[in-house]
Amino acid sequence: MEKITARNNDKIKYACSLAASASKRRESGEFLLEGARLCADAALSGVETVRAFFTADAVADYAEYVSAVEGVCGECYEISSEVALKLSDTGTPQGVFCICRMREHPIESLSAGGRYLALENIQDPSNMGAICRSAEALGLDGLIISGGCDIYNPKALRAAMGSSLRLNILTCGSLAEFLNNAAGFLRLASVPDSSAKDIRTVCGETARGIICCVGNEGNGLSEEVISACDEKVTIPMQGRAESLNASAAAAILAWELKR
Amino acid sequence: MEKITARNNDKIKYACSLAASASKRRESGEFLLEGARLCADAALSGVETVRAFFTADAVADYAEYVSAVEGVCGECYEISSEVALKLSDTGTPQGVFCICRMREHPIESLSAGGRYLALENIQDPSNMGAICRSAEALGLDGLIISGGCDIYNPKALRAAMGSSLRLNILTCGSLAEFLNNAAGFLRLASVPDSSAKDIRTVCGETARGIICCVGNEGNGLSEEVISACDEKVTIPMQGRAESLNASAAAAILAWELKR
Repeated sequence: MEKITARNNDKIKYACSLAASASKRRESGEFLLEGARLCADAALSGVETVRAFFTADAVADYAEYVSAVEGVCGECYEISSEVALKLSDTGTPQGVFCICRMREHPIESLSAGGRYLALENIQDPSNMGAICRSAEALGLDGLIISGGCDIYNPKALRAAMGSSLRLNILTCGSLAEFLNNAAGFLRLASVPDSSAKDIRTVCGETARGIICCVGNEGNGLSEEVISACDEKVTIPMQGRAESLNASAAAAILAWELKR
Repeated sequence: MEKITARNNDKIKYACSLAASASKRRESGEFLLEGARLCADAALSGVETVRAFFTADAVADYAEYVSAVEGVCGECYEISSEVALKLSDTGTPQGVFCICRMREHPIESLSAGGRYLALENIQDPSNMGAICRSAEALGLDGLIISGGCDIYNPKALRAAMGSSLRLNILTCGSLAEFLNNAAGFLRLASVPDSSAKDIRTVCGETARGIICCVGNEGNGLSEEVISACDEKVTIPMQGRAESLNASAAAAILAWELKR
């Protein structure tokens, strides 16, 4: 394995730029993945692994994970622990990194009777990751992600614990436009508004596919997206709490979608 | 209002120690709260406010919130913006801080038919805050908190958006012992184990009060707590996800407890 020890090596600088910048990720269609288990998950999930970096310690300590990555990746480098620290989003890196290609799932891949959450501008990477994790664990057919959501942020990838590599994820520029083209589905706008329909009364009533939209942590869904939906739904709330955390709300919505 | 401009003033050092140290908070029974709205929430919720600090800008910008705090607090200080930065957990403080007393709710305050979550060693402050927010919004009768959970961490307080100041929170040293003394309740241990009972089949069957235990992010519930419960319950999961994020799981459990 060729060895990289210079922190300003071009391949390392490129990998760091993928970790640091959402626009760089979008532009290139690639992202940086960190962690022995996550990188092996990507390999086993059929995510294309373009390039991999391992410290010598990692090759010894995580042999099984590393060899899963080597099995699918033609371009592997050994890196020094200084380089690993530069690549890492954590203070104590395991020393395993991959550059992977995002997968594109077209709108045609929506399954007709499927149940989906659609996310608009979820800002917090921990929320983003937790929602991916809930979507997989609760058996949703996929996630629809609009412009402002960044599932390939290093913190979001970590919080998702591999689910974002396995889930069927459809990315769209404009969620409202996407919804307009998905008229076969019951399109729901989740809002913290007690006059909207109780989510419990909506999902059981239909055998149609459902897309349920969840909005930004502070501002909720845009008017444009709400207008593109068939119905407003809500999780009935009590007390002086005005809303749930976005990932808590998404978990309950996913749970009801699959009930 | 007396003015404090020295960052090493004893009252400021004490306030910083409350923000930084869980053991200092436990020992003193006090915590530091930050933010105009949160501090006003505390005042309006009857939380005892021992001491308050405002910047001159905050007094002008958040007049209504500041006067709510002044109405309940006999010891208010003006602070410089440098001191505010020292007290703050955020980079851009609003300049409103309170030292508040924790409220003690004894085991006798459990309501007989009530529905409660009990938390064991939840580590992540954002999870802790999100769980408080869900517990209030979904109408639980309260939260039971065991040793390792720190709802008065500055990040947890912020993520709870005031709910931790309003909720009925019972703190106990040993959760297992607490459960042993709560035999009138149906005591549930939530575990990521498909052989446990589906949470949907358990809560509807009883008019008894329920205490449902949620464990640590990495290790789940201790054996001791599981043994002190009447039943193991689970949220059925699919895919290769092995578990839900703790606050997502808590949200679904709270939702089912109140269904």
